[in-house]
Amino acid sequence: MTNLAPIDLRSDTVTRPDERMSAAMAAAEVGDDVLDHDPTMRRLEERVATLLGTEAALWVPSGSMGNLISLVLHLQRGDRFLAPHGSHVLNYEFGSAAWLAGGMPHPLEWNAGPGRPTPETVRSLGESGYDTLRTTLLCLENTHNSAGGAVTPPHEHAQLAAAARDSGLRVHLDGARIWNASVALGLPPAALAVGVDSVQVCLSKGLGAPVGSVVAGGEDFIAEARRVRRMLGGGVRQGGVLAAAGLVALDRIDSLATDHDNARLLAEGLAEHGWSVTTPQTNIVLASVPDVALALERLSAVGVRAVSMSGQIRFVTHRDVSRADIKEALRRIDDARI
Amino acid sequence: MTNLAPIDLRSDTVTRPDERMSAAMAAAEVGDDVLDHDPTMRRLEERVATLLGTEAALWVPSGSMGNLISLVLHLQRGDRFLAPHGSHVLNYEFGSAAWLAGGMPHPLEWNAGPGRPTPETVRSLGESGYDTLRTTLLCLENTHNSAGGAVTPPHEHAQLAAAARDSGLRVHLDGARIWNASVALGLPPAALAVGVDSVQVCLSKGLGAPVGSVVAGGEDFIAEARRVRRMLGGGVRQGGVLAAAGLVALDRIDSLATDHDNARLLAEGLAEHGWSVTTPQTNIVLASVPDVALALERLSAVGVRAVSMSGQIRFVTHRDVSRADIKEALRRIDDARI
Amino acid sequence: MTNLAPIDLRSDTVTRPDERMSAAMAAAEVGDDVLDHDPTMRRLEERVATLLGTEAALWVPSGSMGNLISLVLHLQRGDRFLAPHGSHVLNYEFGSAAWLAGGMPHPLEWNAGPGRPTPETVRSLGESGYDTLRTTLLCLENTHNSAGGAVTPPHEHAQLAAAARDSGLRVHLDGARIWNASVALGLPPAALAVGVDSVQVCLSKGLGAPVGSVVAGGEDFIAEARRVRRMLGGGVRQGGVLAAAGLVALDRIDSLATDHDNARLLAEGLAEHGWSVTTPQTNIVLASVPDVALALERLSAVGVRAVSMSGQIRFVTHRDVSRADIKEALRRIDDARI
Amino acid sequence: MTNLAPIDLRSDTVTRPDERMSAAMAAAEVGDDVLDHDPTMRRLEERVATLLGTEAALWVPSGSMGNLISLVLHLQRGDRFLAPHGSHVLNYEFGSAAWLAGGMPHPLEWNAGPGRPTPETVRSLGESGYDTLRTTLLCLENTHNSAGGAVTPPHEHAQLAAAARDSGLRVHLDGARIWNASVALGLPPAALAVGVDSVQVCLSKGLGAPVGSVVAGGEDFIAEARRVRRMLGGGVRQGGVLAAAGLVALDRIDSLATDHDNARLLAEGLAEHGWSVTTPQTNIVLASVPDVALALERLSAVGVRAVSMSGQIRFVTHRDVSRADIKEALRRIDDARI
Repeated sequence: MTNLAPIDLRSDTVTRPDERMSAAMAAAEVGDDVLDHDPTMRRLEERVATLLGTEAALWVPSGSMGNLISLVLHLQRGDRFLAPHGSHVLNYEFGSAAWLAGGMPHPLEWNAGPGRPTPETVRSLGESGYDTLRTTLLCLENTHNSAGGAVTPPHEHAQLAAAARDSGLRVHLDGARIWNASVALGLPPAALAVGVDSVQVCLSKGLGAPVGSVVAGGEDFIAEARRVRRMLGGGVRQGGVLAAAGLVALDRIDSLATDHDNARLLAEGLAEHGWSVTTPQTNIVLASVPDVALALERLSAVGVRAVSMSGQIRFVTHRDVSRADIKEALRRIDDARI
Repeated sequence: MTNLAPIDLRSDTVTRPDERMSAAMAAAEVGDDVLDHDPTMRRLEERVATLLGTEAALWVPSGSMGNLISLVLHLQRGDRFLAPHGSHVLNYEFGSAAWLAGGMPHPLEWNAGPGRPTPETVRSLGESGYDTLRTTLLCLENTHNSAGGAVTPPHEHAQLAAAARDSGLRVHLDGARIWNASVALGLPPAALAVGVDSVQVCLSKGLGAPVGSVVAGGEDFIAEARRVRRMLGGGVRQGGVLAAAGLVALDRIDSLATDHDNARLLAEGLAEHGWSVTTPQTNIVLASVPDVALALERLSAVGVRAVSMSGQIRFVTHRDVSRADIKEALRRIDDARI
Repeated sequence: MTNLAPIDLRSDTVTRPDERMSAAMAAAEVGDDVLDHDPTMRRLEERVATLLGTEAALWVPSGSMGNLISLVLHLQRGDRFLAPHGSHVLNYEFGSAAWLAGGMPHPLEWNAGPGRPTPETVRSLGESGYDTLRTTLLCLENTHNSAGGAVTPPHEHAQLAAAARDSGLRVHLDGARIWNASVALGLPPAALAVGVDSVQVCLSKGLGAPVGSVVAGGEDFIAEARRVRRMLGGGVRQGGVLAAAGLVALDRIDSLATDHDNARLLAEGLAEHGWSVTTPQTNIVLASVPDVALALERLSAVGVRAVSMSGQIRFVTHRDVSRADIKEALRRIDDARI
Repeated sequence: MTNLAPIDLRSDTVTRPDERMSAAMAAAEVGDDVLDHDPTMRRLEERVATLLGTEAALWVPSGSMGNLISLVLHLQRGDRFLAPHGSHVLNYEFGSAAWLAGGMPHPLEWNAGPGRPTPETVRSLGESGYDTLRTTLLCLENTHNSAGGAVTPPHEHAQLAAAARDSGLRVHLDGARIWNASVALGLPPAALAVGVDSVQVCLSKGLGAPVGSVVAGGEDFIAEARRVRRMLGGGVRQGGVLAAAGLVALDRIDSLATDHDNARLLAEGLAEHGWSVTTPQTNIVLASVPDVALALERLSAVGVRAVSMSGQIRFVTHRDVSRADIKEALRRIDDARI
C-alpha cells in the first residue's frame, strides 16, 4: 500500500458525477417509466436515437444488458453469431450470450487489424450448409476494448455490415465507446452505426454518467426490447434521475479528445521508460510485460491502478484523470523503476 | 379526459423523490460498484441486511430482478417451485421464472386466507415420488399484491417456512411490500423473514425511492447473486446515487401507516357509495365491478386513476396521495355516480 | 415377494413385441434417416399423417420428445401455455416445458369433466392485458392419463380448439393414447385432432411397439421439428427397424377395445370387492384407497403390479394382459382381502 | 444421375444391420427401460462401462444426445467450455451446447496436430480471473472427425486430461469413433478414456448398429444422466431390441481395421490421380479440391457419394463398402477424370 494519492486508470467507468450532473439529477422531471415512460428518460432516448440515426432507443441499466437484450432478440435458439475474438459479448458478460440468449459464439480473427475481422470472413461464415449451425448475427465492437480501444473506420464498418446483410445476418454494434471512435475520427456517431439492426452505447464510461446505457434500433425492435428489459428485471421506475445525468453526459462527447491526448501522453511516456505499449487510437493503452500480476502489484504500490486484460496491462484515461495526473503516474513509474 | 388534477392510485411505484431525497442523491459518496463496491451501496446493503436479519444483501435495479436472481440460484433445470396463485413471480414477471430460471411453477390455492397457502399443502407437494417433478422451492409474497395487499402473520409465515424445510425445499420471500406488512403488524421486518433463504424488498414502492430493490440472504448466496446480477446486466457503476435515495427511503417505513389509513378511508368511502370492496390490511383496495374496463374509463374521466388486476379494480395509496386527495377522489366518484 | 406370476398393470408401456412385430423389424428396409430419410420411417410418418389428417409427421424416440419439440416450436421465451391440471406436459416431463421450451405453464381446472377444461376458461385466459404474461398455446391431452384415461368427445375438443384460435392461441394435442379415445368413440383419430397445430401420438403404449412416438402437423412445422429433433439428440440412423414395428402397431388399433373391456371388468370386480374406483372410459382404472403405499405393497405381494398416480392407484390394461389375467388378479385381491 | 450402383462414402452411419444383427434384435429379451431397466439394455450398458473402464453407462438414441447430456451435467449456466475447433459439439449439434446446456464454447487451436490442442493451452485458459468467464470443462474428440479421423495418442490424451484437472476443469470425451482410435493404436478403448468424467461412444457408426450411442461415467453421473435423458425425451421403452444390435456391434470392433485399410487404399489411389488428400489414420479421408460443390456433383454423377466438410471433401469407409468397392470408386474417378 501507499500513501500516494491513487491515480485510477483501471477503467473509464470509475468517473464520478460532477456538480452540474448532480444538480441535473436532483432537478429531473420524473415519472413511472414502467407505467408511463418517464419524461426525462424519453428525452434521453430520443436524443440518443437522433445521434445514432435510429428510429428509437431504450435506456438500460448497463451495457451488458443492452448487448444481452439485442442478442436475445436477434438470435433464435442455438443460432451461431460471429464476433471479433476478445469481444465484450464473448469474454466479459459471464456467458449470458449462450445461457440467456441461446447463441453459439464464433470468434473471428482480427485479419483486418486490431479488433477488426474482414468482410470476406463474414461472408464465408455467414453461409450455412448441411449439418452446420444456422448463423444469423454479426456483433461488432467499436472501439474494441480488448484490442486497446481500436477504431474501426466507417468504410470498413460499412463493408462488414454489408457482408453480413448479403449473407442474411443481422448486425449488432456494441458501441459502448462509440463516442471515442466518433471523436477520434471527427465523425458523427451515426456514421459508425450505418447498416446495423441495433447498437448499444454507454453513458457511464468516458461520458461520466453514474449509471446507464442505451440500446437503439428500429421501432419494432425497441418495443420488443422494452419487453425483454422487463423480463430481465431492467425496467426501473423514476429513471429520470439517471436519464438527467445521461443528458448532461451527452453534452460532453467532445471532451473525450482530452482523454485521447492523455492516453497518447501515457503511451509515449511508458515507451520512453522502455515499456512495450500499443499506440492508442482513443483512451486505452495496452502494455506487454513479462509478469502481469507482478507489474500490477508494483504499480499499485505507487498508487497507479490498472487491470489485467488478455495477458496485458490495460490503462484507461478518463475525465477524472488530468494531464497532470498522467505525468505524475509516469514520474512514479520512473521513480520506482517498474 | 378531464381538467381535474389527476389522483394517481394506480401503484405506489409512481411516487417521486422529494427534496430531501434529491439532496441526498446529489451529495452521495460514490464509487464504481462493479469494480470496488460503491460505499453508499454498501451502507444501504448492510442496513437492509440488518433490518431483515440476514448475513448480506445486494442492491438490484428492480424487484423483478431480485426475484429472478433468487430463482436462478435456488432452482436447478426443470425444478418445480410452489407459489401462491396470483403471485408476482407467476403473473407479472413475463415468464422469466421459466425461461431464465428454468423452473416449473406450481400455483398454490389460498386455503389459509387471501394470498396464503397452508403448510399442509406445502408438505404434500414438497415430496417427490416416481415420475414426478423435483420440487425444490417455496416462494412466498408478503404482503400479497393480487390478494389486495394481504398480510401473512408471522406465525403462519414461520409454519410455511418450516413445512418447506421439512420437505427439503428452500424458501424465497418476495417482500416487495414487506414494509407494509411490518407496519400493519407492528413488528420488525426481520420477524417476517424468519426461515427464508432469500428475500427481496423494494425501495421504490411505498418508500418512495426512484429506483431499486434489495435482495438479501446468506453470504454465499449474495456472492453468487452478485455474479448473476452481472449476467443479467444489473450491475451498475456509481449506484451510490440511487442507494442514497434508498437510505432516505428506509427512514420512512413508519409513515406507511398513513397510506394504510388512507386505504381504509378509500375502502369505506367506496363501500358507502355501494361498491363491493375488500377491507384493506395495508395500502391496496380491490373493488369488484361488473365491467372493469368501463369503470376504469369512467374513473379516468374524473381524474381518478387505477388499474385492472385479476378481474378487479386495484387502488393503491402512497406518499404522493394525501387524505384530502382520497376525499376528493371519493367526491368525484360520488358526483359522477360511478 | 411372491411366487405368483406377476400381472403387470403398471402401464401399457410394458408390452413386448410379438413374433410378427419382431419379424417385421428384422425384415425392415432401412436407410440413414438423418442423411436421407429412412424409407420405412417415411412410410410410417406418411401413414400417421394420413390417420391424423395432417400434412406431415415425424418419428421421435418418445412421446415426451414429441411434446417437447412441439412446445419448443409453439412457445417464444417466457410465453404462458394452458394445459388441464395433471397433464403429462405439466407433471411427467421433468420440467422440460419450462427449462427447455421456456414456457410458463398455467394449469386449467377440470370444469367440463375429468381432464377437460371449458372453452370459456380458455377464452378468458387467452386474452393478455397490461402487465400479464403473453399466452400463446393450449395443450390438450386425449385420453387424459391422470384423469383415468378420460375421453374428450369430438365436439368438445373442437370447441376448445376454436376458443384457442379465437384468442390467438395455437393448439397442441398430446394424443399419446388418442387411439384409445378413437376406439372408445368409434371415430377415426383425425376426428379428434381437428383444429390442432400439432399432435403427438404414441406407438409404444397400447399398440405395443417397443420404441417410438410420432409428432404430426403442417409441413413447415414438421421441417422445423426435424431440426429441433436433432438439437435434442433424437435423430436416429436406421430407424426403419423401429418404424417397421410401428407400422405393425398401427394395424392393431381396433384391438384396443379388448383392453377397454378388460378395464371395465377390473373396475367392476374391484367395486364388488368394495374398492372406490372410477368407471373406465378406456384402459385406465383409478382407485382411491386410504393408504396408497400400503395398498401397492400388498398388491405386489400377490403379484399384482400397479402404480401410484395423483394420490390414487392406477391400473392400466394392455395387450400383454388377458381377460383371464384380470380375473386372476381380482381373485388374488379377493383372497388376500386387500 | 447415373446407372452405376452407388458407392456410399458419405458416412459410416449409413451401414445397415446384417442378418446376425437382425436376428439378435428379433430374439432380444426386453423390458420397459423407463420403468424397470430393460435387461438387454443393462447388459449393453455394463459391457460398455467395462470396455471404457467406467463405473456405469447409459444408452442414448444418438451421440448428439450423449454429448448434450454430458454438457448439461458438467456445465453451470454460462460456463465456458474448451473444445478443439471443428469439434462435433461446436459445429454439428445445432447449437445445443449453448441453448440447452447454457455453455459458452471456446475453440482451441490444433497446436499439437490435427484435432489436438496442447496441454499448455488448456492450462492457460482454464484459469479464471477478474471479469472473465468461469471455465469448467474440456471436451475432447478422439478420433477427431473434422481433422480427418485423426487419433490422439494415449499419452497426449492423458496430458490433456491432467492439464484440465489441474485447472479444475472436468473432461468429457466425444468418443463416437473411439473404436477406430483403439484399433488404429492397438490399445483397449479404456486406455483412451483415462482421466475423463464422461465419455460418449457410438454404436451406429463403424460398428454398424442401426441406432444408439452410450454415455459412460461415474455412478452418480449416470444416475443424473438418466434423469436428463428423460427430460430430453430420450428414454425409451423396450430398448432391448436396439441394445441387442449394440451387443453384436461391439463384437466387431476389430473389423474396423479393414475400414482403415480401405481408407488408406482410397487415399493412395486419389493421390495417384493427383488429388491432394490427407493420409488417413483411421477411416476418414479429406481431400482438398478447388471447387467442393462441383467435385461432389461430378462424383455423384459416377455414383460415388461423399460430403463437404470444413471446405474439403470427406470420404468415410465402413463395413458396407468393400475393398472392391474402393477400387471401383477409384476406377470411376479415373474414368471420369474428376
